[in-house]
Amino acid sequence: MSAAPFLKPPRIVEVRRNILKHNDEVARALRERFLEARVYVVSLVSSPGAGKTAFLERTLAELNRTHRVAALVGDLATENDAVRLRRSGARVEQITTGTVCHLDATMIERALADWDLAALDFLFIENVGNLVCPSSFDLGENRRVVALSVTEGEDKPLKYPTIFQGADLAVVTKLDLAVAAEFDFAAFEGNVQAVAPGLPILRVSAKTNAGMADWVQGLIDVRVPDRL
Amino acid sequence: MSAAPFLKPPRIVEVRRNILKHNDEVARALRERFLEARVYVVSLVSSPGAGKTAFLERTLAELNRTHRVAALVGDLATENDAVRLRRSGARVEQITTGTVCHLDATMIERALADWDLAALDFLFIENVGNLVCPSSFDLGENRRVVALSVTEGEDKPLKYPTIFQGADLAVVTKLDLAVAAEFDFAAFEGNVQAVAPGLPILRVSAKTNAGMADWVQGLIDVRVPDRL
Repeated sequence: MSAAPFLKPPRIVEVRRNILKHNDEVARALRERFLEARVYVVSLVSSPGAGKTAFLERTLAELNRTHRVAALVGDLATENDAVRLRRSGARVEQITTGTVCHLDATMIERALADWDLAALDFLFIENVGNLVCPSSFDLGENRRVVALSVTEGEDKPLKYPTIFQGADLAVVTKLDLAVAAEFDFAAFEGNVQAVAPGLPILRVSAKTNAGMADWVQGLIDVRVPDRL
Repeated sequence: MSAAPFLKPPRIVEVRRNILKHNDEVARALRERFLEARVYVVSLVSSPGAGKTAFLERTLAELNRTHRVAALVGDLATENDAVRLRRSGARVEQITTGTVCHLDATMIERALADWDLAALDFLFIENVGNLVCPSSFDLGENRRVVALSVTEGEDKPLKYPTIFQGADLAVVTKLDLAVAAEFDFAAFEGNVQAVAPGLPILRVSAKTNAGMADWVQGLIDVRVPDRL
């Protein structure tokens, strides 16, 4: 035990508050920049391995036919996701965070410093795989999507409520494994409603393409009125 | 942008260093207490939904026949895991962390304050589901196990190296889904070796019980020499 442990929590809380306040300011500036450029920004959060990248790969490939799309992808290490996503033909930049468990608005600001955002219709931001840390950090996005794979279990909304409460849409991924994983959709939906009432839920499989057309059409439909 | 953003990172780093230093002191005291009580402590880290709880449920049920076992389980919210694990007959206590993405040594110290540790052979600590945050926090455990399910993908060691580097064993869970998920064991093992050379890897399924007997026997075998 160090000398005055009772002094520590308030100090940490204060620093945390400053970090979040600073983040909110940068996020607000980003949001204005996105609006001005008429680019629609969607961020993705999930556990590691929930299939965000495969889902995004499909989304980029679909949208790339009719719209100008790009993505930023966050990971602790490696450029692997950026390399993989570039195969869609979209501009993709990797943000490596080292030991930081989430993206923040300053990382986004830096990554986009020299981008001409007006040349884009959609920008996707894939966060670091984490169901906890990303929830406090506004990235200036229009919509935040939380993805959960059928193999992770129906109880996750109850155990990680903040990430579901901060999302605008929940996407259930790996639909092709639902039977093998014995995923109980009704239980999951009940748990979502318990912590985030009214949160819409979509079911998809990047492998079989199930649900992907609805998702992509939904993005196209929501972008226009939101940008008017 | 606030007035002097260049001042912020050092301050945060300093606070973080203080937090970690304080944690290490508490962890050292815990480790001494565990050694004195001759209880063997194993912690489990993984993504949300990797199957830590199912794996631990099986482990407790198996070990409970011949040894005195108990567990602490960390989650942001709910007592669900503790309730579920208590069915094994073991003493189980839930630690809820609110918005904190990992357990720390002080949480363990508090949870164990009134426990008679000498009455135990094994204590398991299930961390909050997270592949990033828990890696920096020593809990005084003898062994740290990182679990990864076959549905999460072979690339995770490259993308979350610190959690694999801090572990003593990697357990691949949900072996029963390996074929459906097209999990490539050779690729995964190569990735583990690239970031954490020599880290042993075990394959299990809590559903079919595959690999569980080896794991439990391994625990029994390692406990005795370590406690001499």
